[in-house]
Amino acid sequence: MKIAVVGLGLIGGSIGKALKKHTSHAVYGIDIDPETVHCAIAQEVIDGAIEPSGLSECDIVFIALWYDPTVEFILQNADNFKKGGLVCDTCGIKYAVVSKCEKPLLDKGVSFIGCHPMAGREYSGFAYSTDDLFEKASFIITPTENTDRDWLERLEKLSLEMGFHRYVTSSPKDHDRVIAFTSQLAHIVSSAYIKSPSAEDELGFSAGSFKDLTRVAKLNEDMWTPLFLNNSDALVFEIDQIISHLQEYRNAISENDPKTLHELLRHGRELKELSNSKNR
Amino acid sequence: MKIAVVGLGLIGGSIGKALKKHTSHAVYGIDIDPETVHCAIAQEVIDGAIEPSGLSECDIVFIALWYDPTVEFILQNADNFKKGGLVCDTCGIKYAVVSKCEKPLLDKGVSFIGCHPMAGREYSGFAYSTDDLFEKASFIITPTENTDRDWLERLEKLSLEMGFHRYVTSSPKDHDRVIAFTSQLAHIVSSAYIKSPSAEDELGFSAGSFKDLTRVAKLNEDMWTPLFLNNSDALVFEIDQIISHLQEYRNAISENDPKTLHELLRHGRELKELSNSKNR
Repeated sequence: MKIAVVGLGLIGGSIGKALKKHTSHAVYGIDIDPETVHCAIAQEVIDGAIEPSGLSECDIVFIALWYDPTVEFILQNADNFKKGGLVCDTCGIKYAVVSKCEKPLLDKGVSFIGCHPMAGREYSGFAYSTDDLFEKASFIITPTENTDRDWLERLEKLSLEMGFHRYVTSSPKDHDRVIAFTSQLAHIVSSAYIKSPSAEDELGFSAGSFKDLTRVAKLNEDMWTPLFLNNSDALVFEIDQIISHLQEYRNAISENDPKTLHELLRHGRELKELSNSKNR
Repeated sequence: MKIAVVGLGLIGGSIGKALKKHTSHAVYGIDIDPETVHCAIAQEVIDGAIEPSGLSECDIVFIALWYDPTVEFILQNADNFKKGGLVCDTCGIKYAVVSKCEKPLLDKGVSFIGCHPMAGREYSGFAYSTDDLFEKASFIITPTENTDRDWLERLEKLSLEMGFHRYVTSSPKDHDRVIAFTSQLAHIVSSAYIKSPSAEDELGFSAGSFKDLTRVAKLNEDMWTPLFLNNSDALVFEIDQIISHLQEYRNAISENDPKTLHELLRHGRELKELSNSKNR
């Protein structure tokens, strides 16, 4: 097949590298930065650059842009995609993208499936992309009742060929609900954690737990702000959950109640052990 | 010197292993479990077992027990320690230990210095101890106005010989204030995080950020409950801090306010980058 990757950043670059490493598909790239395109060609991550008009030759187009540019690119290029072909996005939220993009593409005879490769780094850009970014990661696919079953199966198969650990299918809304907990909340909590005035005195007093809890505070606020705001109901629910649970620990500690505190900690440990055993 | 380690668990076992690996001091061990003592001798982690009465021969005694048994052991054995010798504990809180143990030992002519090796694992027990547990870790030392300056200098030097990345000195109260933020809060937040009902659906939807934020929810509630309750003022302050910051993000998201949310995230990123640069 001919596969195009639009946006050769951390995710798009890694998609290109994984496709070239593991498959024999021809890969073409589009990026607003000509230097990045040159670099991707020089490193044989893509077989060549194309213009948006060239997308009509591509069986699959991965859009690896941020949320707003993803929707914009797809709607503006609805006429450029190949009839009978497949377009996938890679944004961290799915309902907002799928509800805006699926129907306009279907009207042009183009399939659209919202995707979310569950991988990332604290760094962005082509320079940080790797051919093994996805090796321990899930590829989340969010089909709807309109999704072409042949394309869905081919995409599932392709994700495994590209080196993803597994694929998971979910409705766009369920994806957004769970991702609010597993990813978005982590970034909010990490960012809130580092704001204590005590952070100034942390040097020499921190070990693995502090590093883990604050690692993803180093996020790109331009990318994350629209992802959070376009999933606000699910994310506000999760923030309220953790605040209400934190208050339980706070009260047990301030009331010097060892029995309640011990029980809260025991329950948390058991839930984490259950999660570890499921992820094994 | 003759050095004793009381409690051959994760920390005590690792102290023994680090001493044998990096120094030529004779190391003796005490543990309530005879199997652990046999094992430590067989692995040459200690040169031999001793009874509490034998502590009078030891220049330095490291107490590597949990909080309550630490205080109990020190007070019960005040007469057994070597006159002119040094006793150190390794608990995660310092004011409660130092204020209870320093004076009674001084009265017997024994120096006491509260210590906190900033290293740990989600596992406990001698089987998990390693000779390099402390290699990237700080050794926190909490002297007071009564501390013997010679012993303080020798302890600082010994910590570096044992392979600690660095030592840090602090008053016991300052230690507890900062550790409430860097370590205790991390364990509370991690434990609270995993309690969302969404945790049931996490499989396939989680990546590094979820794993990092919830790793230390797998804690030992028997050990941590008294550590939290004996540092309650500082810890309640930190929980209140993160709750109040989480509410800022929550309000910005529920009010669909991109400017405020972007600013909150930007500030968090900058604080994390500052922390990273200081820890480099």
